[in-house]
Order: sequence, then structure tokens, then C-alpha cells
Amino acid sequence: MPLMRSWVVSANAAETDFPLNNLPHGVFSAPGRRHHLGIAIGAMILDVTAAAPVLAPALRGALPDGAADPLAGPDWNAFMAAGPAVWAAFRAALQTMLAEGAAAREALAPHLVQMSEARLHLPFTVAEYTDFYAGRQHAFNVGTMFRGPENALPPNWLHIPIGYNGRASTVVVSGTDIRRPLGQTKAADADAPTFGPSRRLDIELEMGAIVGTPSAMGSPVTVAEAAQMIFGYVLLNDWSARDIQAWEYQPLGPFQAKAFGTTISPWIVSRLALAPFAVGAPPREKPLLPYLRDDGPGHYDIALSVEMAGASGPSATISRTNARELYYSAAQQLAHHASSGCAMRTGDLLGSGTISGPTRESYGSLLEMTWGGRDPIELPGGARRTFIEDGDTLTLKGHAEGDGYRIGFGECRGTIRPAPDVPS
Amino acid sequence: MPLMRSWVVSANAAETDFPLNNLPHGVFSAPGRRHHLGIAIGAMILDVTAAAPVLAPALRGALPDGAADPLAGPDWNAFMAAGPAVWAAFRAALQTMLAEGAAAREALAPHLVQMSEARLHLPFTVAEYTDFYAGRQHAFNVGTMFRGPENALPPNWLHIPIGYNGRASTVVVSGTDIRRPLGQTKAADADAPTFGPSRRLDIELEMGAIVGTPSAMGSPVTVAEAAQMIFGYVLLNDWSARDIQAWEYQPLGPFQAKAFGTTISPWIVSRLALAPFAVGAPPREKPLLPYLRDDGPGHYDIALSVEMAGASGPSATISRTNARELYYSAAQQLAHHASSGCAMRTGDLLGSGTISGPTRESYGSLLEMTWGGRDPIELPGGARRTFIEDGDTLTLKGHAEGDGYRIGFGECRGTIRPAPDVPS
Repeated sequence: MPLMRSWVVSANAAETDFPLNNLPHGVFSAPGRRHHLGIAIGAMILDVTAAAPVLAPALRGALPDGAADPLAGPDWNAFMAAGPAVWAAFRAALQTMLAEGAAAREALAPHLVQMSEARLHLPFTVAEYTDFYAGRQHAFNVGTMFRGPENALPPNWLHIPIGYNGRASTVVVSGTDIRRPLGQTKAADADAPTFGPSRRLDIELEMGAIVGTPSAMGSPVTVAEAAQMIFGYVLLNDWSARDIQAWEYQPLGPFQAKAFGTTISPWIVSRLALAPFAVGAPPREKPLLPYLRDDGPGHYDIALSVEMAGASGPSATISRTNARELYYSAAQQLAHHASSGCAMRTGDLLGSGTISGPTRESYGSLLEMTWGGRDPIELPGGARRTFIEDGDTLTLKGHAEGDGYRIGFGECRGTIRPAPDVPS
Repeated sequence: MPLMRSWVVSANAAETDFPLNNLPHGVFSAPGRRHHLGIAIGAMILDVTAAAPVLAPALRGALPDGAADPLAGPDWNAFMAAGPAVWAAFRAALQTMLAEGAAAREALAPHLVQMSEARLHLPFTVAEYTDFYAGRQHAFNVGTMFRGPENALPPNWLHIPIGYNGRASTVVVSGTDIRRPLGQTKAADADAPTFGPSRRLDIELEMGAIVGTPSAMGSPVTVAEAAQMIFGYVLLNDWSARDIQAWEYQPLGPFQAKAFGTTISPWIVSRLALAPFAVGAPPREKPLLPYLRDDGPGHYDIALSVEMAGASGPSATISRTNARELYYSAAQQLAHHASSGCAMRTGDLLGSGTISGPTRESYGSLLEMTWGGRDPIELPGGARRTFIEDGDTLTLKGHAEGDGYRIGFGECRGTIRPAPDVPS
């Protein structure tokens, strides 16, 4: 599919993240507009809350009787709960009304806001956050560091999309500062742990899938059903304190090492926008159980990168990889998540797991890039890093490459601030 | 403190769970009343939603300017968010107005509903659910089964209130049926896992602490501050599929083995009602780090029991223990939870961990009572159980014993229904 041209001229530029083919969903504030729903188009945001009288008629045919107003805000949750027919009708209407030459230009143009003048918020209320572990190379790298290459992959890894429940209260939008966490750590040769600021603070480069339509308690879903439940995707940085994690994670998994913050990009890129970039799964090393089998392309070809900058230095790209490195798709993870009868809800956020490619330049965490802190990376100007220092800014970027256009996610950025005082 | 006598005569009976000293918070429906706030008093429920015009004036002095109406419902979350001054003012007003001889009898009596005619709902909206592991004997028992008695306690256990994030979407109120979960399991001698109904379905006897007032992201709290943030307690059954757990839990902890259902008792017993039953901590085998030190009695003397019944058989008490067996208090767990800067929210539910005493008759799970399924327990009529069968009902009960009265929690009960079909 080629670039779809829009009367919003900046949406036709080859380098924009937000052509008419994309139309991602966000929430913004701007002078006179507080927590409005918005759709990114080129360098502009279409204020959906203000334009609702123009847009709502297009949804009427797709809305179930008695459904809540999907454009009521203050976030996209009601829209996501309205289901795939509404998602498709809304997208089709926008693509018609924003197309070059469209008669709706006169009605919609007054509702465009410069993105540079807007402040972006979390686009949805996170119901619960689950983090998976579907990066084959990441699991292998981490396992090698902790257990040696022969036992790198846990025995269940090729059978189960391994995941754990994360903390939703600290999922924040790109641009939110993160305070370095305090926590218990224990040096290998110490008798007892100490409590203080983490000294091995890291990122994890991930995709986040967002559940649109719910499933009932006690009712598992198939992979095909799960695929239809997913509304869209964001970039996700699962900030991790490796020293806290190492001491706390046995036997019940990561807890405070990952509870202090998770950053997501501000625009939900819909599954519909990503459909042209769907690709098949990597080769299966063991056959999957039937409830996890994926019969269509459930992965995405999305180029990803990590940039790092010191407090005053320029930004350097320290890693480039691709979402197709993931072994399990979001639909497989969601089907597994519901397999026990676990109820899934509108607004559930599923982290993919860290996405690492086969080489150091394509790893998705500093733990891997520096091999546990052994081999520092070098930033422009000569600064060296093993883990993150106060004042450092980490930025994830991602886009799918179309024929003369790109489907971008915007930035997933966070700056680390000093740890709080130890409470006493 | 002796029994406080009420003009609600059933509240003065020695065997009631709900004397005037208790006044726990619930949500109920009854003819003409849908999801009303209620306070249990003897065999009655005071309909707080209907009686709000009578009760609200007592709160005015304690309410911050511009605060939301704490009695607006449809659950107790707004009340919990209003903070300790409101909690205390409300309790004091009720204890005055419901006391024997009170003039308010005329105004309140029309708002009493027979508890036997009410249907009870979840008393609060669960923000997030975290499950801890603070039962010393339980951790030792499980560790012994998996790793032998020398390595039973993980090395971090005496330093960290170990916990993991649980799943909030499947926290249900007492009386809700639970479907047996499906999941992946692998026999020790099998080459590959299979997918089907769990065959080692279990309970975990726990207390649940409910966070009333929030903490900000990036801001740890002291144990003393955490104690003030806790609104109250419920009984909690953390249903667990041991066979799913054994195969999935390495390296990231329990996930689907515990995601299918968690049952809580319907009445939140406030921290204020439990204050007379506060006791000190068990002896500390290792000194705790300063951020975890508890300088007052943070534990509670609460007698707990587990009853089990087959589909048609009578109920038998299979375990009796006490909440004072816990090694870490809820305030310590909450302080640890916030220690990384994790934001805590109104409605967060913290499971204590399984509470086991020193003998088989005081263990808090079937895994321990039957020692991994080796030694069945016997039910009245001769039925034997290692784990739970379809149709079995498990009921947790708990109360603190006062001078001529008891502070009871009501029941925490669930019946297991057959597993759903495998999705295909």
C-alpha cells in the first residue's frame, strides 16, 4: 500500500511518523483543551473531543445498542471497549475525511492543533500491566550470564510465553522523569544486604500491546480471538534495577526491581495501521501446544532503536533491532494469559519482553550490551557507561517502513533523576 | 475493652461476628437497593447509602475542602481515599448513634436491612493486587518440599518481605464460584508439557490488607506512615494450581497458576476495630534493615480456620491457625512495596502470604497438609482428599476474641466448578 495523501500537508512528508496511513490515538492538553482525545496527523493533532459532533455519525452503525459514547474520553478506554467494528469504522471515516480533496476539510480544519504546542498524556488508563519475556536472544543472553550457555534457556521457555504481573500504577507517558529507585541489594561477598539507590539501573526495549475488548473470568480464548481483542501497540521501556532484581527475584520473580517506573510512547498505533507489516513467526524449535498455535502472521516488522544521552551530551544510538525478533506474538501471549480463566480487561497492557537481536549492537538492554557491566559502551564525547547515571536520557524509537511512508510510534523517552532520601 | 451494647439487639449476642465494636464495611444489594454501602451490625446491615443524610454531617469536620463525597459509593474507595480522620469520625459517629439508648435510633432504624436478605458484593474496587509470602512456616514447608530442609528458606527471606504482583481482575467476593483452571503442566518424566485442567488445585489461607490512602510515585514511606495508610483487612483465599505453578514459575514467578481467582471475605474490618488485638512481631532471626523496622505492635491476634466440604457432604474444619504466625506485618510489606518509589493507590490489596502454624493441623494449604499430595486428609463420611475436587467448597473464617465479644470477618467461601473446555 502506498502513502495515502492528506490535505494536512505535513502528513505527506516522507519522514513523518504520522501519515494518513497511521492515525494513532493519543490524549493531549493544549491552551483551552484539557485531556482531549487526539489523532496524530503529520505535525498536527486532530482534536477528536472538539470534533466529536463531526465524527460521531460515522460510528453509529457500528455501535451496539446502549453502548457508552466511545468518544466521551477522558481517555481511549471507552473507544477500545466498543470493539473492532467501531475501530474500523472510525479509521475508515478519518481516512476519508482527512484525504486530499475531501469535503470534510472545512469541518475538521478548525479542530487541528499544532503537536508542538500540545502536552501529551497517557492515551489510556492502564487496567493491569503484564510483562512477558518473549525475546529469544534476550532470554538466552540473560540466562547465559546467570547460568552459563548450556542452561541459558529455562526448560519451559520454548513451550510457554513466560510472563509475570507488573505494576500498573507507575506506567507513565514518554517525557516523565524517573527517580532512581531505592532498594535492597547484596554484594556476592557480603553477609547481609544494604538499602540504598540502585547502582545498576537499566532499560528494557519492548513493545506494549493494549487489550481493547475484554474476556470473561473462567473463559479462555483462542489465539485467533486474542488477535481480535488487541487494539494497538506502543513502545515500552521497562526500567529495571538489576542489583535489586538479583537479590529479590527468587523464588517469586521481579518485584521492586521493576515497580518504580515503566514508560510508554504517547500514541497508540492501531493494529489496523500495522496490518500491512505483519510477518510470520520465527522457526519453532519445539512444536507449540495447540492452544498457542498461530496460523497467520502475528508478528510485525518494526524497526526499533535506543538512544542514550548524558546530562549535557549529545544523543547516540546505542542499539538497533526489530520487533520480528520476538518468539511469541502478542496474540499468543494474550491467549496464554487468559488460558487459566484469567479475566482480561480493556486497558490491559502486555509488555513483549526485551527485544534483542543477535549482536551487541542490537541488544535491548544495557545488561546485555555491557555483558553484565563488564564492557562499557562509549557515548559521543568519550563518556562511558555500564548502567544509567543520574541525568541520562534514554529514548526508544520505532517505525514500520512502508512504500514511501512510515508508521511511527513517536518517542518513548525518560530522564533519570537522583534517588529520594532513604525514609527514616 | 468490653462489648459495646447496641440498640440493634442481635449485635449484643456473644457469637455474632458484628458487634458494635466491629462495624465492618461492605457493599450489598437487596430489594430496592442496588450496590449500596453497608455497615454490618449483628444480623443486620445499616444501609449507609440510604442513611447518608443522617450520617454525613458527622464527617464534615474531618473532610478536607473540596474532597469527594466519601459516602457517594458505589464502593468504599472514595471513603478510603478520604483518610484516617474521616475513618475515625465515621466510626465514632456510628458507635454513638447505634449505641443502646441512642436518640439516633429513630432516624437510623428505617435504614436497617436483614443481612439474610442481602447479596454481598466486593466492598471496594481492587486497584492492584500484590501477594506476599510472610508465613515463616509456610515458606519453610514449601522450601523443604522443593529444596530440602537445609535450603528451605531462600537467603533473602529473613531480609525482604518477599512478594509478587498478582492479578486484580479475578479478585471476587465470597460465594463466587471458581472454575478449575486449564494450564500447562509437565510430569517429571515427560518429554513435553500437556494442556488441560489442573489436577493439583489448592487454597492459600491469607489475610488481605487494603490500602486506604495513596503514596506518590518516587516517594517511599516509612513503616509508621504505611501503618496509617492501611484502611482495613479481609480474609483472602489465594487459589493456586500447584501443577501449573511448578512448571511455569521459573524464572519470573507464579502467573497463570494464581491468575484464575482470588476470593475475599465481603466485609472490610477496619484497622481501628482490630487495634485492641494488635500484638508484637515474632522474634527476628536476623536484624531488619532500618527502613523495615517496626517499633510498635503491627501484627494481630486473629484466630483463623479452614473448612472443607465435598459436593454433598458435611463441612469439616481441616485447619486452625492464627494471623500472628506472620513474620512481616502488612505495614512492613507496604513500606517495602513503596520502597523503590512504586506508587501505592487507594484500593490496593496486599495478600499476607499463606499462614501456617507449626503442625499439620495448622497449615494453611493442602500442599502442606498433605505434604505435596503424599498423605491425604480425611473428610467426614470417609472421603479423602489430596487436592480439591470439582464440587468441593472451601471456607475460611476468622475472628479476634474480645472480652465477651468477637471481631469477625464473615466467611471467605468458594466452590470449585469443572474446568471449561480447552479452546480450539
